[in-house]
Amino acid sequence: MLDALTLPAPLAATDTMVRRATPEDLPALMALLADDPISAARGDVASPEDETAYRAALEAVLAAPGNDLLVVADAEGTVIGTLQLTLIPGMARRGSTRLLVEAVRVAGDRRSGGVGSALMRWTTDVVAPALGAGLVQLTSDAQRTDAHRFYLRLGFIDSHIGFKYRVRA
Amino acid sequence: MLDALTLPAPLAATDTMVRRATPEDLPALMALLADDPISAARGDVASPEDETAYRAALEAVLAAPGNDLLVVADAEGTVIGTLQLTLIPGMARRGSTRLLVEAVRVAGDRRSGGVGSALMRWTTDVVAPALGAGLVQLTSDAQRTDAHRFYLRLGFIDSHIGFKYRVRA
Repeated sequence: MLDALTLPAPLAATDTMVRRATPEDLPALMALLADDPISAARGDVASPEDETAYRAALEAVLAAPGNDLLVVADAEGTVIGTLQLTLIPGMARRGSTRLLVEAVRVAGDRRSGGVGSALMRWTTDVVAPALGAGLVQLTSDAQRTDAHRFYLRLGFIDSHIGFKYRVRA
Repeated sequence: MLDALTLPAPLAATDTMVRRATPEDLPALMALLADDPISAARGDVASPEDETAYRAALEAVLAAPGNDLLVVADAEGTVIGTLQLTLIPGMARRGSTRLLVEAVRVAGDRRSGGVGSALMRWTTDVVAPALGAGLVQLTSDAQRTDAHRFYLRLGFIDSHIGFKYRVRA
């Protein structure tokens, strides 16, 4: 949990707000993670048999200092988005603290409505300064060309290559 | 600090070992970060006036649960490399825990000697399984084409684009 976050927070120019995820959000979170062909190809298919692993992960994120799992809820309280934040102190860039963003998802039927932009703007302009982070970073699958345009429009620079290594069991 | 790490650890097929950084390593760490034109262009130039910021960052990394700052020392005890590790629980990929690697550096006069490979092999094959991480991830500046070949040789996949956003002061 990131204690310094002020939650819930309204998202500018939308009728939505961000709050911390709870165990009750688990079905909505599993559905959001599966509502995307690239994630589904990696195994996020909202299978009931994976519920235990997702529940443990949700509890682990909320229990981990420096980490938080957030959801976006619309005016009716329906969960329509999520992202994970990790605050990372570091030596590089003259001792800069980074804010890492992972697992950004907006429900398929709510995309292009400004929620994703508002969520990322809140992250870069409200959360990062409040947490003392000088840099916000994320990686996006090379296949997600729409997402790349989205991040570039928001002022992110595509300066790096993201490498992943699957650990042998 | 990552309590589950067994340190110091010898690096296979080298006469070096990995240990946790201490405040006494600060000059060597600052020199390693500056021993690289891309880092220097971002402000890591080992300037004495930045020492306070680096010292605070070193203390912050060692104090942060889930984070560790390590150095590689040769047979004489000289610090010739460093990297930072961050363990991140997460929802995506069916609740996978990730190990993020940041700020990997090997001294310019010790590169191509197998130390970098041994350090990354230890990270992927010893550290990640010991910490329960299913994925090791890092980003590398798009200009570092030698580093990209190095990571690909080690079995990393360059599947992602790394985006960075500089937070306005």
